Amino acid sequence: MVKITVYVISCFLFTVLSYAKPFQNTSCYVDPYIGSDNGGNVFVGPCVPFGMVKLGPDIREFHEGEGYHHSNSGYSVAGDLLYGFSHVHVSGTGGGGKYGNILMAPFTGDFNTKDYGSSRSDEVAQVGYYAVTSSKYKVRSELTATHSVGFHQYTFPASDKSGIFIDAGHFIVQGVSYGEAQQLVGSEIRIISPTEIEGYSRVRWGWNAGAAYTVYFHAVFDTPAVSFSTWKKDIIHTGSSEEFDSGEKTGALFYYKTTDKQAVKVKVGISFVSSAKAKNNIQKELASWDFQQARQATVDTWNGYLSRINVESKDENLKKLFYTGIYHSLLMPTNRTGENPLWKSDAPYYDDFYAIWDTYRTLHPLLTLVWEKRQVDIVNSLVDIYKFDKYMPDARSGNDNGRTQGSSNCDILIADAFVKGLTGIDYETAFKAMIKNAEVSPGDNERKEGRIGIRDYNTIGYVSTNHERSASCTIEHGNCDWAIAQVAQGLGKITDFEKYKNRAGNWQNLWNAEKSHKGFNGFIWPKSFDGKWATDLEVTTFGSWEGYYYESNPWEYSLSVPQDVKKLIEKCGGKDKFIARLDTTFKSINENVWGSGLYNVSNEPGFMSPMLYIWAGQPYKTASLVRRIIELNYNTGKGGIPGNDDSGAMSSWLAFQLMGIYPNAGQNVYLITSPHFSKTTIKMDNNQLFEITAKNQSAKNIYIQSALLNGKPLEQAWFKHTDIKEGGKLELVMGTKPSKWGTSNPPPSISE
Amino acid sequence: MVKITVYVISCFLFTVLSYAKPFQNTSCYVDPYIGSDNGGNVFVGPCVPFGMVKLGPDIREFHEGEGYHHSNSGYSVAGDLLYGFSHVHVSGTGGGGKYGNILMAPFTGDFNTKDYGSSRSDEVAQVGYYAVTSSKYKVRSELTATHSVGFHQYTFPASDKSGIFIDAGHFIVQGVSYGEAQQLVGSEIRIISPTEIEGYSRVRWGWNAGAAYTVYFHAVFDTPAVSFSTWKKDIIHTGSSEEFDSGEKTGALFYYKTTDKQAVKVKVGISFVSSAKAKNNIQKELASWDFQQARQATVDTWNGYLSRINVESKDENLKKLFYTGIYHSLLMPTNRTGENPLWKSDAPYYDDFYAIWDTYRTLHPLLTLVWEKRQVDIVNSLVDIYKFDKYMPDARSGNDNGRTQGSSNCDILIADAFVKGLTGIDYETAFKAMIKNAEVSPGDNERKEGRIGIRDYNTIGYVSTNHERSASCTIEHGNCDWAIAQVAQGLGKITDFEKYKNRAGNWQNLWNAEKSHKGFNGFIWPKSFDGKWATDLEVTTFGSWEGYYYESNPWEYSLSVPQDVKKLIEKCGGKDKFIARLDTTFKSINENVWGSGLYNVSNEPGFMSPMLYIWAGQPYKTASLVRRIIELNYNTGKGGIPGNDDSGAMSSWLAFQLMGIYPNAGQNVYLITSPHFSKTTIKMDNNQLFEITAKNQSAKNIYIQSALLNGKPLEQAWFKHTDIKEGGKLELVMGTKPSKWGTSNPPPSISE
Repeated sequence: MVKITVYVISCFLFTVLSYAKPFQNTSCYVDPYIGSDNGGNVFVGPCVPFGMVKLGPDIREFHEGEGYHHSNSGYSVAGDLLYGFSHVHVSGTGGGGKYGNILMAPFTGDFNTKDYGSSRSDEVAQVGYYAVTSSKYKVRSELTATHSVGFHQYTFPASDKSGIFIDAGHFIVQGVSYGEAQQLVGSEIRIISPTEIEGYSRVRWGWNAGAAYTVYFHAVFDTPAVSFSTWKKDIIHTGSSEEFDSGEKTGALFYYKTTDKQAVKVKVGISFVSSAKAKNNIQKELASWDFQQARQATVDTWNGYLSRINVESKDENLKKLFYTGIYHSLLMPTNRTGENPLWKSDAPYYDDFYAIWDTYRTLHPLLTLVWEKRQVDIVNSLVDIYKFDKYMPDARSGNDNGRTQGSSNCDILIADAFVKGLTGIDYETAFKAMIKNAEVSPGDNERKEGRIGIRDYNTIGYVSTNHERSASCTIEHGNCDWAIAQVAQGLGKITDFEKYKNRAGNWQNLWNAEKSHKGFNGFIWPKSFDGKWATDLEVTTFGSWEGYYYESNPWEYSLSVPQDVKKLIEKCGGKDKFIARLDTTFKSINENVWGSGLYNVSNEPGFMSPMLYIWAGQPYKTASLVRRIIELNYNTGKGGIPGNDDSGAMSSWLAFQLMGIYPNAGQNVYLITSPHFSKTTIKMDNNQLFEITAKNQSAKNIYIQSALLNGKPLEQAWFKHTDIKEGGKLELVMGTKPSKWGTSNPPPSISE
Repeated sequence: MVKITVYVISCFLFTVLSYAKPFQNTSCYVDPYIGSDNGGNVFVGPCVPFGMVKLGPDIREFHEGEGYHHSNSGYSVAGDLLYGFSHVHVSGTGGGGKYGNILMAPFTGDFNTKDYGSSRSDEVAQVGYYAVTSSKYKVRSELTATHSVGFHQYTFPASDKSGIFIDAGHFIVQGVSYGEAQQLVGSEIRIISPTEIEGYSRVRWGWNAGAAYTVYFHAVFDTPAVSFSTWKKDIIHTGSSEEFDSGEKTGALFYYKTTDKQAVKVKVGISFVSSAKAKNNIQKELASWDFQQARQATVDTWNGYLSRINVESKDENLKKLFYTGIYHSLLMPTNRTGENPLWKSDAPYYDDFYAIWDTYRTLHPLLTLVWEKRQVDIVNSLVDIYKFDKYMPDARSGNDNGRTQGSSNCDILIADAFVKGLTGIDYETAFKAMIKNAEVSPGDNERKEGRIGIRDYNTIGYVSTNHERSASCTIEHGNCDWAIAQVAQGLGKITDFEKYKNRAGNWQNLWNAEKSHKGFNGFIWPKSFDGKWATDLEVTTFGSWEGYYYESNPWEYSLSVPQDVKKLIEKCGGKDKFIARLDTTFKSINENVWGSGLYNVSNEPGFMSPMLYIWAGQPYKTASLVRRIIELNYNTGKGGIPGNDDSGAMSSWLAFQLMGIYPNAGQNVYLITSPHFSKTTIKMDNNQLFEITAKNQSAKNIYIQSALLNGKPLEQAWFKHTDIKEGGKLELVMGTKPSKWGTSNPPPSISE
């Protein structure tokens, strides 16, 4: 495999040269396999950042209770049969599958539309490139992609019966057992010539219970087919050139006579608008038939993004972890500007927010820090969705809002942008969108958009147990209210500021001081509409979609008040008691099992928990703890992410932690944890640099002894985004032992 | 015009023969122009019953405050400029315009995409046929249609510059001033050959504030174009064959050299699924190029429907009124079975419920009586919409629910079907859909689906003034609750029966006994959440969309309790006082002005009012009153319908009254009014006949003296659908004077 060798060498050279020449190619540190196993569900195929086309293999795997299905990303390490390559995927998601549209599969010999899966060998996944050999058909498939076009190169053996199978009705099948499976609405195929096929796939439901979406394609082949057929509902119609949509699966077969190692190339333009638009996307993005050139262009695009951050370390694995984390953070949401079939607008259009509940904490703050204009575009797309589609989404996929996880966390993205001074956003309209979330019940659409139980919350001060996820929603509504309050204050809306600042304390209405566990008193606890505490759960009862707490338990959620940790410490009985509670939380960290214990590394409610020591004056405990969490849960193996990557949420958490800072999303605040790199240099969108240096940093020297921010002493373990956004330097001196540094002047809380 | 003559002669012959041969062609009595002026907004072009394609002229007219726009149907009597012929329309609607997609316009000479309207002459509108000559271009256009295909025949003068203009982005522009105007999302055009064009129009919003819908087309021309162009955003691209969708208007121009009277024919297949489906629709429905044959087939289809009712009268105008009323009752909703782009189901799919609030009272009961299977299909489509789209609609268009007018009146269609014994409906699922309406708040979607103010209603017993249309919604929720109660009872759900029967009396919670007007005490009156009567309105204040009462006033709505007229009479102070109140209501009937007075003939809240005398023991007053209302408000002129036809609501009210019976929708009851025909014979779907004879009937003999139902004396002025559904005879003897007949045993009320 000559090509692979070239890449390996270039990566090696880069390693050698990287200290000398920062901001060079860094994509060779990305391993798309990291997080592809162990339920990480990351997408392994080629794509560009935020790419509409995510071209990847769809592989059958066994799911308990559902038989053989796909994973959420289409890919599966252990899956036995490869079915082909489809063009639209999501990354790192859980729940019911979504997309998996427009599948192509090369074959040789007789083809059975019902049983065509093959085992696979010689698989390669790199940035902008995926290759695999199908054992059954002896065809080598290589894939790359532009933003809207999938580029396939199939190398056949000598055969009179070579062919390419197109399934216009294909989609990821997952989530059958819990009612979230996608449903076919219809599909269509039209063979225009021996080198052109068009069609579409129309599918509804899936994870977000969304309305029907349509993925159109236009495919061009570099080699004319010798003959062709269409098929509908598994019946092949030889010589037919069209299958109109009658609500069934349709497809086509292109037949070739191939000599040994003959390559057939296919460009598949994708559009959510029309096949003609898909055709135009090919013309615009991928004029040439040079596969290597296209692959290199995609790699170049990634390098352009990834090399905006330069990290210095002798540990190559750490760089691999870091850049792969960054890579995963740039896969979603999907940029579908120009591809919105629902309304016409000058605003950007992004889809596949999956969900903002997952990504608001770390992924979007990462974009804001490094790729600010991208975050501005994303925020503008959210506001545009409000303008034309009633509510900003918490989650959205297939052009439809849903499913809301905890609150209207897009409010936090607005506040985050506002307090960090992002320009180019209509904050007055964004504010209206926030107020809509906070005031207008979505009624029957509580799972789709708006805030769950908002009528309860606005009348009795908490979401009652009449609603699902009542306790966690109450907590999260409060943080969103604080987001609104901050924007209100900035826009001079003082009455609104006071109102939502007060509401931000509503979590206290669910503070059950009587509840006690392991010697600690006081937990946020579900309460009925008429004020009775729920009795059918324990402090460690892990909550579900229909339970009291979403993806965590009362213990963890009772620490999840990032807007007012000061008040939380009071409620918990003061600093010492609070620290003891944190110590208990993390005591058995290396015994963690997903869904049990006091700290769940794999879900977002615990993202901030390790940093709470900073408010309590013990930042050194955060430093050692975070390093221990990474050590235990993240690695460069295929199962190297603890559970679903959650659209890059886990990966961006990791990326921040490796750099040694952590955002309190929605606030103008970075907490300082413990850098893994001796130096991190970020080239921001304004071309200014933000440097983090960690003098003496090593596996043992993990504790900060002193700090300078922009050349001035920094005694506290946090700083503001606005301190560094015009360029900045954070200079840390590390040591082996905890120091007094950062133990006073805790990060902001509402009740100061 | 030879063709017209043929039709006129056949109509004349039919008239002569109709007494001798019932169930013959009756479509010649239909005048599509009736209701096309005076805001009637009926659709005048060719279509089949419930046809997806409604092919008609789009004519510019002047709208106060909006300048030149279209009427809701596209057609305008007084409009000055004809722009062409588009394929999708609604009939008899008000509010913002909808549809008007895929326009074709023949021309000669140089063509200006920005200014191509022409005055018109020699217009003919008949069942299945529309023809007009454009003065500017001297082209005669003739149109006919099948269910999914528009058939155009353009007869050109001799010209080197003849052509056909296609606007793929065209739509009805109406409602700009009140925010209900349609908005272009995108459009596309592809010239496949000199005889084939495809494309689509994607449009959002319009009257029901609906999401984007897409109308696809495939057009075939019998004459190859000499040359062609495409255009986008008014710029013509000569020789180009494709304009992909970039969110702009697109279209095409086909050029011809024509000899004098050369005809060019075009078949335009329409689909809501895809262009290939549109092409298939042509292949399925319209194989031949014989225009006259296609026209005759459409006329035959209409005759098949219309001749299911035979009426005997020497008054030809009365027949014209009647059959045109029936014709208008068969235009909407639209049968789009097989054309649903949102989900796959075996159930029928109907769209363009516009709104059920308008049509549940008379249109659907008419279908149930004559075309029962059609009504079963429609009800099944509503239940299917609930299953896949959350709520049954009150209104729906462009594949999206909205806007809800008064309550969830589809509940009444379910009850109507149930109590009348319609089979083939899954009533258990239908019942769930009703319960959803009655129990689950649509929140922010109150204008889209479900019941307005249902949380108020279910907690304090009425819709408070926190919600728009609070008073009228309270009243209508009650009638819907009675619908639920009846189905509950029939399904053996006794607890539900009791619950909803009680709720059906909720209108009494808004009975303001203190309110007095013209000597009458007690009116249904808006009330705040904390129980205070509204003070900012009068008894005759006409309500609006955002007001207290929808399309009427407190006086009229205070008579609108069809589920419990007995209780209403009590509330009004007893029978005598109630009769006096009705007498006052109708006193100045011939002074009526839309939007004022005590009785509004043009809106549905007053539909039942004239029949209330029957409950009060004076059916003879209903007899004379109804005749007077018809005489004053309905005629065979272009302005012959009082205001919007409301999707056939006004027309079906008229049709029932002319037959002399009137349904109390949702109940197993027909009231007997005063037949205008000596005999009406209905051939029902089970091939059984229902005959109404009115012996001695004349313009003077309008009062019923005695009656037989199925050969037995009938003393009461009402009977049950189940009395006649297996065949039945209602024999009335008419006289000049009111009689004692029908004065006792009033129709059913809840509180009996």
